[in-house]
Amino acid sequence: MLVTIIGGAGAMGGWFAKFFKQNGADVRIVDRSAKTPEIASSLGVDFMHVDILSQHCPSDITEDITDTDVLIISVPIDITCNVIEAVGKRMKDGTLLMDLTSVKREPVRKMLECTKDDVEILSIHPMFGPTAKSIRNQTVIFIEISGRWGKLCDKIENIFERKGARIVFMSADEHDRTMAVIQGLSHFVLLSYGITLQNLNFNVEHAREMSPLYEIFTDFVGRILHQDPELYANIQMNLDMKEIHEKFIAAAKMLSSSVLNKDEEKFKSVFLNARKHFGNTEKALKESDEIIEIKLNKR
Amino acid sequence: MLVTIIGGAGAMGGWFAKFFKQNGADVRIVDRSAKTPEIASSLGVDFMHVDILSQHCPSDITEDITDTDVLIISVPIDITCNVIEAVGKRMKDGTLLMDLTSVKREPVRKMLECTKDDVEILSIHPMFGPTAKSIRNQTVIFIEISGRWGKLCDKIENIFERKGARIVFMSADEHDRTMAVIQGLSHFVLLSYGITLQNLNFNVEHAREMSPLYEIFTDFVGRILHQDPELYANIQMNLDMKEIHEKFIAAAKMLSSSVLNKDEEKFKSVFLNARKHFGNTEKALKESDEIIEIKLNKR
Repeated sequence: MLVTIIGGAGAMGGWFAKFFKQNGADVRIVDRSAKTPEIASSLGVDFMHVDILSQHCPSDITEDITDTDVLIISVPIDITCNVIEAVGKRMKDGTLLMDLTSVKREPVRKMLECTKDDVEILSIHPMFGPTAKSIRNQTVIFIEISGRWGKLCDKIENIFERKGARIVFMSADEHDRTMAVIQGLSHFVLLSYGITLQNLNFNVEHAREMSPLYEIFTDFVGRILHQDPELYANIQMNLDMKEIHEKFIAAAKMLSSSVLNKDEEKFKSVFLNARKHFGNTEKALKESDEIIEIKLNKR
Repeated sequence: MLVTIIGGAGAMGGWFAKFFKQNGADVRIVDRSAKTPEIASSLGVDFMHVDILSQHCPSDITEDITDTDVLIISVPIDITCNVIEAVGKRMKDGTLLMDLTSVKREPVRKMLECTKDDVEILSIHPMFGPTAKSIRNQTVIFIEISGRWGKLCDKIENIFERKGARIVFMSADEHDRTMAVIQGLSHFVLLSYGITLQNLNFNVEHAREMSPLYEIFTDFVGRILHQDPELYANIQMNLDMKEIHEKFIAAAKMLSSSVLNKDEEKFKSVFLNARKHFGNTEKALKESDEIIEIKLNKR
């Protein structure tokens, strides 16, 4: 099985290049990055150093790229649909077009629009980043796309399962709604916190000394800030964040006014309603206690 | 050494009753809770079931309470100063008045105001909750109070150090400013997130399946929601949170508008400035990777 990864010199693309190579596939990376030859050599895979979206990209190159069993698109969110357009129509019957994008509605729509009925489609969202040591126990979301599942999809799913990934199926709509809260809102909140630390000119190292809870919370902020701002901009801008931002800001304002007005009854009732909705807070306490204990023992 | 703990039937008071008993002190708890006798019996300590703030509390009872080597006040923040007033004046020369409150400026001022010069004062903030297994590696903030450190303070510090606590000294002002960010802002942000999950009617269990990062973040929200709303109201209402809330809400609004206007340049510049202020984001990435790895291996 030949797996070709467009964007394979990127962090996630490279991660999957290595993953598929280790699992017996022939792998080829396609990337516009100047580092492509070097990265391909360190991964021990073939490469094509080409910008697939360039106007000068000759059609025989696209032909060459699509001459593969599996074509994985691992490029920034904002150019994913353009790349799908460039390669989709040339995909051959019985081959598989696959993407790893963090948003799913548009890429899936585009893959369906741009490929023939006999081309398999697999749209997944790996819920981990390029620093993950393995796929073991990691959640990978598979988007349900009716009529485009085939033997190559089976093969990919089997590799993932054999390596211990947790596969969760959902529709593209459900994925994007869920991620708008899980990723979109938590990134938004952590980034706003990071900006506030800056605006307060607060010494971040100070937080670490205090307690594992604040240490971990602070590290989550730093974890996001360490990564590519474009990825986070793209996630925020490609999910339906408007209502979610508004609801969060409204909640913060409401909570703040209960505090500044010293309205303890209001604060408590808001707190207890949120607890009721949350559900099993005792489990949350226990789980966080375990994490805190581990951090303490590392001190 | 007799250690008397006002509020000793509460969670933190009980934790310290046990701690001092295990470390060789005679311990007595004083509490208005109906469960006081039962809790004292389970802890194996003496008790006085009395409401020290009641108008009917006879002065010989207060006399009895202050007939101790160490008097620890472990009551809700909003009544701490009242309790200090009730007992401070009766403290005998060479004894120690101590508090565990999460805010320090007012209690310290009150302890200085209400005690004679020959009474030792120790104002500490243990940076852990009542579910902590031990004091080992836990940070305990000691407030610098000039002229009131004595041999009982030494003794308490020695016990903490022998048991492996990390003692950090700072002024009451510095403590309250630092905690307004570390505790005040992070609680505020996590609570606002919890309220938003409710207002979005989002299924919290869904977050746990996705990735350890969101699982831990969600558990932090639930951890707070599981605890006493009064404690969190008191922390918010007794620290200077106004500017901090305002700066956080302003940051969230600004970030949101950059997203909704699809102003990627603005988003990136805000992101990169926050990264610059944060400092060592690579360390944050590594530290959070380790925590994530541990959670994955538990799956």
